[in-house]
Amino acid sequence: MRTIETTALVRYTDEKGLADALRGADALFLYDFLSTALRRAWPAADRLRWVHIASAGVDPVMFPELRESDVVLTNSRGVFDDSIAEYILGVIIAFAKDLPRSLELQRRHRWQHRETERVAGRRALVVGTGPIGRAVARMLRAVGMAVSGAGRRAADGDPDFGEVHASAELAAHLPGYDYVIAVAPLTEQTKGMFDAAAFAAMAPGARFVNVGRGELVVTADLMAGLRAGRPAAAALDVFETEPLPSDSPLWTMPNVLISPHMSGDFAGWRDTLVEVFAENFRRWHSGEPLLNVVDKQLGYVPSGQ
Amino acid sequence: MRTIETTALVRYTDEKGLADALRGADALFLYDFLSTALRRAWPAADRLRWVHIASAGVDPVMFPELRESDVVLTNSRGVFDDSIAEYILGVIIAFAKDLPRSLELQRRHRWQHRETERVAGRRALVVGTGPIGRAVARMLRAVGMAVSGAGRRAADGDPDFGEVHASAELAAHLPGYDYVIAVAPLTEQTKGMFDAAAFAAMAPGARFVNVGRGELVVTADLMAGLRAGRPAAAALDVFETEPLPSDSPLWTMPNVLISPHMSGDFAGWRDTLVEVFAENFRRWHSGEPLLNVVDKQLGYVPSGQ
Repeated sequence: MRTIETTALVRYTDEKGLADALRGADALFLYDFLSTALRRAWPAADRLRWVHIASAGVDPVMFPELRESDVVLTNSRGVFDDSIAEYILGVIIAFAKDLPRSLELQRRHRWQHRETERVAGRRALVVGTGPIGRAVARMLRAVGMAVSGAGRRAADGDPDFGEVHASAELAAHLPGYDYVIAVAPLTEQTKGMFDAAAFAAMAPGARFVNVGRGELVVTADLMAGLRAGRPAAAALDVFETEPLPSDSPLWTMPNVLISPHMSGDFAGWRDTLVEVFAENFRRWHSGEPLLNVVDKQLGYVPSGQ
Repeated sequence: MRTIETTALVRYTDEKGLADALRGADALFLYDFLSTALRRAWPAADRLRWVHIASAGVDPVMFPELRESDVVLTNSRGVFDDSIAEYILGVIIAFAKDLPRSLELQRRHRWQHRETERVAGRRALVVGTGPIGRAVARMLRAVGMAVSGAGRRAADGDPDFGEVHASAELAAHLPGYDYVIAVAPLTEQTKGMFDAAAFAAMAPGARFVNVGRGELVVTADLMAGLRAGRPAAAALDVFETEPLPSDSPLWTMPNVLISPHMSGDFAGWRDTLVEVFAENFRRWHSGEPLLNVVDKQLGYVPSGQ
């Protein structure tokens, strides 16, 4: 932020001071990316032209006043892609090699040989065809998995996915996959897309991974599905309510792996996020086109940008 | 085994009946591959010409009487390679993404965000340049790790490893790696190669993975090393004594992942092992050269075969 301080007056604030800080400000770097404070402070934004958010998902700022304003919104697309892809591959192998059970047996000093699964050859559906989904697809292909995508529009011959199914027809395609991986942005269209019908359509033994947003999933339907064996297991990094309440049944459900919204957060991510903002600030200050401009109607950065 | 029964008289036996079954037998398929029964039954082998073992490691049958005999020894090289590579990648990602800690926090219903590590860019040394080591190297490279090998002879420009260090100079090279992975066969030369000096030479934070044989490691030195932080962590699938005794301190050491000699044992491995033997039996019966002939002086199948 040093370079920025030489060319701009920088105000640092928390949620409480946001309205005061916004007054007269041209640009906002929203570092607390899950905060809903911006909507409350919005009436104070009297000359705001640009908001940059320190995350890939922009759903927390997709409130009507910002959406319908002329304020440009940019995100931190790209920072988390490869780290999230590694995390997803890690939970897939953990399931295949029965690692949680090995740890449980280790606690009991029990030597109990089991047969494990191969990862190569298994079929994965990556729901979300943005840069995170693409990084995931490349990673899973690299270890020999058969990968397809699901996105807004169906496509063939995609360089990362091969076949892309239309998310609107998701249920028809779900039976064909061993792993279903949710990395879609949260929009009006994707909210609750993983519901009872989706889980019922999954193949026996299929596992579900969610690193997108908790609200992609109808949590009650997921829990009912897990009890019925579809999905057979789930790795969840995001939740409808975060932090996940300590009395949530998800904590203790068998075959559920829970992590606290950290799949992309590799050591150094904070510096990288600041670098992304600093580059966009340089562009903004010198009148160049900004990177990662969100289409506020779609709710994400369209591909090809 | 059906096809074999049409062309040969097949006797099935356990350890107890081995001597009786060996008498008059031309070939032995040793399915219980960790058994030491063959040495005790050896005097009964009055016309044995071929032993096939249902494993990659042949150390349990490297006793002098077999070694110095004319009996041909073949192994099941190739069956486990890719499954073991997946397992190794899995434990590497589990360490990088702090998965065991996530599971521990999950048991306590605790939401505790941490920063994780990237896997791409980390340096791995694969000790053992046979087919398992090569499969591991290809897998780790596929996810962006920087991989070298260590084997009997130093080499440059190896297709899988790039650089191969001589195992005799291992300690000089160990400081350069974040992950040290033991997949070497157990021979006179490799026995105890991971000793106090080796662990002391590892980089701070380096992690050790052993899927080769427990006897590659001086277990007391490994435990002392873990207490001193070098290695910083270990994933162990094989042990000097198996099953690992329930009072072994390894079960409860922090940063140690224990699995019960199962890293290669994917569902279907038994059928695949029988197929490998059946193919070699077909060759043996029709006078064709056998696959996977062990060099009994080296203690493994030399590469290029």
